[in-house]
Amino acid sequence: MARSCIINANIFTPQGSSARRGEEMSVLKHFENYAILIEDGIISDLVPMADLPKLDSDVEVIDAAGNAVIPGFVDSHTHLVFGGYRPDEFEWRLKGDTYMSIMERGGGIQSTVNATRAASAYDLEHKALWFIDRMAEMGVTTVEAKSGYGLNTESEMKMLDVIDRLANRSGVPVRVVSTFLGAHAVPAEYKGRTDEYVDLMIREMIPAAKGKAKFFDIFTEKNVFEIEESRRLLAAARDAGFKLKLHADEIVQLGGAELAAEMGAVSADHLLHVSDQGVKMMAERGVVATLLPLTAFALREPFAPARKFIDAGAAVALATDLNPGSCFSGSIPLTIALACIYMKMSIEETISALTINGAAALDLADVTGSLEKGKSADIVILNFDTYKALPYYVGMNCVKTAISRGIVVKNNN
Amino acid sequence: MARSCIINANIFTPQGSSARRGEEMSVLKHFENYAILIEDGIISDLVPMADLPKLDSDVEVIDAAGNAVIPGFVDSHTHLVFGGYRPDEFEWRLKGDTYMSIMERGGGIQSTVNATRAASAYDLEHKALWFIDRMAEMGVTTVEAKSGYGLNTESEMKMLDVIDRLANRSGVPVRVVSTFLGAHAVPAEYKGRTDEYVDLMIREMIPAAKGKAKFFDIFTEKNVFEIEESRRLLAAARDAGFKLKLHADEIVQLGGAELAAEMGAVSADHLLHVSDQGVKMMAERGVVATLLPLTAFALREPFAPARKFIDAGAAVALATDLNPGSCFSGSIPLTIALACIYMKMSIEETISALTINGAAALDLADVTGSLEKGKSADIVILNFDTYKALPYYVGMNCVKTAISRGIVVKNNN
Repeated sequence: MARSCIINANIFTPQGSSARRGEEMSVLKHFENYAILIEDGIISDLVPMADLPKLDSDVEVIDAAGNAVIPGFVDSHTHLVFGGYRPDEFEWRLKGDTYMSIMERGGGIQSTVNATRAASAYDLEHKALWFIDRMAEMGVTTVEAKSGYGLNTESEMKMLDVIDRLANRSGVPVRVVSTFLGAHAVPAEYKGRTDEYVDLMIREMIPAAKGKAKFFDIFTEKNVFEIEESRRLLAAARDAGFKLKLHADEIVQLGGAELAAEMGAVSADHLLHVSDQGVKMMAERGVVATLLPLTAFALREPFAPARKFIDAGAAVALATDLNPGSCFSGSIPLTIALACIYMKMSIEETISALTINGAAALDLADVTGSLEKGKSADIVILNFDTYKALPYYVGMNCVKTAISRGIVVKNNN
Repeated sequence: MARSCIINANIFTPQGSSARRGEEMSVLKHFENYAILIEDGIISDLVPMADLPKLDSDVEVIDAAGNAVIPGFVDSHTHLVFGGYRPDEFEWRLKGDTYMSIMERGGGIQSTVNATRAASAYDLEHKALWFIDRMAEMGVTTVEAKSGYGLNTESEMKMLDVIDRLANRSGVPVRVVSTFLGAHAVPAEYKGRTDEYVDLMIREMIPAAKGKAKFFDIFTEKNVFEIEESRRLLAAARDAGFKLKLHADEIVQLGGAELAAEMGAVSADHLLHVSDQGVKMMAERGVVATLLPLTAFALREPFAPARKFIDAGAAVALATDLNPGSCFSGSIPLTIALACIYMKMSIEETISALTINGAAALDLADVTGSLEKGKSADIVILNFDTYKALPYYVGMNCVKTAISRGIVVKNNN
């Protein structure tokens, strides 16, 4: 049995095994000068230092004196497996190129699809591992990874197999959760024939992906997958046993939030242009609102209405959206800065959004996202004595040590 | 003689030994597949790989194949020596507290002054070293450090002595340049008696600081040091042999830019509210406009008008303003993201602003800021094959290796 103990811990954590909604998001429990006992990757107990029994010599001791301790972060929305890069497209956008002219110049998602189809599974896996290492340095201990750059059965399955290996091979510093996003876009070869691509997905891709991914996700958007097409695909995926996510109301107000509530999705994501009715329905049905401020920042778009969701009693999660196009960033520190400075979320709400609610967005709130007896030992030790340093040290990494499933995976300084 | 050689280097660099102004800022010279020869910390030659002679066995070889190579960054405006932290004040500001109510609650610069006066030189030095290490990880090879939290002769000299040790002790990974900022604020004990504090500075502090700092800097601002007081202090400092800098037009349009031009300052900094006349005078007189986007970002203020300066033919530098109050951030990646995405600077202009023009803002453009024969070997190797990754990898650190004065000081991955 592998045992370790974090001593002199000044702990701040949300609590519970489900999403924190509305005012619950601002509640962090404080355990001052505690020890966290860990056995085989699980938190076996939290005890005041004064009550800590003498530790056996085989227990690894980690001293957190002077450092705040919080749960590991959950990044519940990423596209971290992809071929190629798109820096030129980023520059074209800076210079004012429109979405359409970027497509015409060979940019856009199809260029990543082409590069991903051409890449070997080995190259995709090792490239993704590099990003996962960067995430672990920032305290991420659970990450979601989507397919969606294959857009045919063979390449989508290649991506899901890569994600499966990341989830199961040894030495990967974070927990990886898999999402099938075959409905990320209509591939070039199906241009103007969206219905046929939807048919292909239902007939061939969803059955092939079954068992390879926990979630089914879809880019519900005007001129991509509209509401009716999305409903049809989501129903088929639900019938096949997938849990559901949606990219919803990112570019126009299409009703993706309402559809997410109707279909019983676990989360709806982006939501820059969500309707008031969509907010209300998501709050009522307990759909997690996953907001992705890095994408809005990179695209110079207004931020999603975090306060509307929280004030309506919904659960808000924050995630990075790491991808090679609209948001080539996995910065947890910048996500926190944007949430606190620009989205009017409190520091405590931001922490809940990146821990327990991120876990809830992956249907893992009973496993991780808070520091409690019986949960996975996914723990971050900060370089500062207060969690308030997280937004205060603007855009900078506050993480000293990241512990994932009981194992120290990063020691930054 | 210590010798090293960076091989297979794909180099992008500004050129010259003075500030790049206006359109010059967008010019980067490209050396494809070159070797950088280094002797005793100086670039002894740049040669095409095809012309590289066989290297002696004592030459340390660094292979940059597949990675873009640019000059080390110059962070020409920081307050990296300070006592205490102010996370609570940051949170009060998030919640809408005004500048005045923060002062009344014990926040503001005076709280850092109190903590800095109480701190030992040893503690100040070791705390600053931690920040310098974080900067080196982001590719900073030259950093300016200001006094200004002592605000009496004894404590200002303590700060300058700390900066002097950082500049001269071995093992510090970056070049440190010292600035005397006794005129950062009027200390509490001189409240309502600004003239007496100005007198004290001229009579006692400026003479005491002479020889301990290269620059004299002042916070020229309404209700702090107004134009007349600033002119008096700047003249006294210039007479004592200091080169001049100003915090100018940060909060209101007071005419700090015009004063900087009149006094022949090396740089004027902040400049959020600069007048058109100020822009014109700075361009004419060659005063470097040092813009600090992290501060505007953290305070939710509009950014300084970078394009106005560049289009007027001025030289723009970018710096972090790292300090424990208005901008507790030293993020070079976020500075780059803000400049490119929100200030309409091109990627090439942003690189010039953080290298040769940062060097010029420290009167060091003949020493560092570009990769040329005879200059200091201050070099950054990126994790990507193009410098365009710098803004594209939004808010993330692209730096693989930082080399300062010929020595590898950080190897990130």
